[in-house]
Amino acid sequence: MKYGARNRIKATVKSVTKGDIMSMVKLEVTAPHEMSSVLTTESVEELRLSPGDQIELVVKAIHVLPVAE
Amino acid sequence: MKYGARNRIKATVKSVTKGDIMSMVKLEVTAPHEMSSVLTTESVEELRLSPGDQIELVVKAIHVLPVAE
Amino acid sequence: MKYGARNRIKATVKSVTKGDIMSMVKLEVTAPHEMSSVLTTESVEELRLSPGDQIELVVKAIHVLPVAE
Amino acid sequence: MKYGARNRIKATVKSVTKGDIMSMVKLEVTAPHEMSSVLTTESVEELRLSPGDQIELVVKAIHVLPVAE
Amino acid sequence: MKYGARNRIKATVKSVTKGDIMSMVKLEVTAPHEMSSVLTTESVEELRLSPGDQIELVVKAIHVLPVAE
Amino acid sequence: MKYGARNRIKATVKSVTKGDIMSMVKLEVTAPHEMSSVLTTESVEELRLSPGDQIELVVKAIHVLPVAE
Repeated sequence: MKYGARNRIKATVKSVTKGDIMSMVKLEVTAPHEMSSVLTTESVEELRLSPGDQIELVVKAIHVLPVAE
Repeated sequence: MKYGARNRIKATVKSVTKGDIMSMVKLEVTAPHEMSSVLTTESVEELRLSPGDQIELVVKAIHVLPVAE
Repeated sequence: MKYGARNRIKATVKSVTKGDIMSMVKLEVTAPHEMSSVLTTESVEELRLSPGDQIELVVKAIHVLPVAE
Repeated sequence: MKYGARNRIKATVKSVTKGDIMSMVKLEVTAPHEMSSVLTTESVEELRLSPGDQIELVVKAIHVLPVAE
Repeated sequence: MKYGARNRIKATVKSVTKGDIMSMVKLEVTAPHEMSSVLTTESVEELRLSPGDQIELVVKAIHVLPVAE
Repeated sequence: MKYGARNRIKATVKSVTKGDIMSMVKLEVTAPHEMSSVLTTESVEELRLSPGDQIELVVKAIHVLPVAE
């Protein structure tokens, strides 16, 4: 399958907590992987990112889509 | 700083490609890390996830927020 | 009303399930309609999409905004 | 494949417009299909949705993920 | 119109910058208004939020939907 | 800290309602502030936005990220 998304991360399920409507899944990622971020050019200029910079990527859990076979 | 988000991933910038309005940043993640996903309980039941399962996490690049000091 | 969004889909409510904080609404869409997707040019090239291709569109329920009069 | 998302819509590609960083794909959906929306219980109560109601679903194109084989 | 969204903010357009696929609109908000955030209960506990706390709300521009009559 | 996001809004917590998996935080925004929206150029043309126009910005609560020190 090919996805119209830049980030595909292999992960191992650690726990599943079910709620009434929403549930949370926690996962472990051990293999090194790439990530991509798309943001406004204005933001990228404010951040002054250049190759080699160490930064942090923040992602709300609601935006992470699990896919299983 | 504390964020109202479950996922914080340390990453190293590899490249920055600037476009007219939006830009793309590619990053490398080498340290093992946790991830969390929130989805409907219905989806979690369809996926039948249990601890130890190997799955894939798909995240659109637009949902990845870079944070730098 | 005019919305800054490409997708407006007429739908009929089938069920409403209320939870403590979040609720889920299920709907039926019977009329043919258009949809638009915005993704990175890199992703579009990987998918090699061309007119006539049959694909699937995946949308998390959290990204669907109901509007009623 | 199983996805942690409630909405999977079969669609036919009509056009692809490539930009510098982002691209837009337009699609046609002809088969009737279901959709699900997750929103706050407060919002659902304000909307007073009940089965049979005709509403509109608004989705930003950026939240539509194409998946192809 | 009623929206299945907690945040509706009155704003005045300051500028519009058009790009090939995406555009950016800048706006001014002068009237005091409410905002709501939904996040995991885990995150809310880590943030230890209580009434009266001064915090910052971060929202990617892509998640802001303009609506005009 | 610098964020790859155009919108940073100072807010005061009014209430916190905890649910099983997700929680809702209500906030008050009193200081005038800017906002930015990114949307397709097609949408911006349909909306015919020009400086001075009064519009409304709709944001789902799930897309609002609280950040605290």
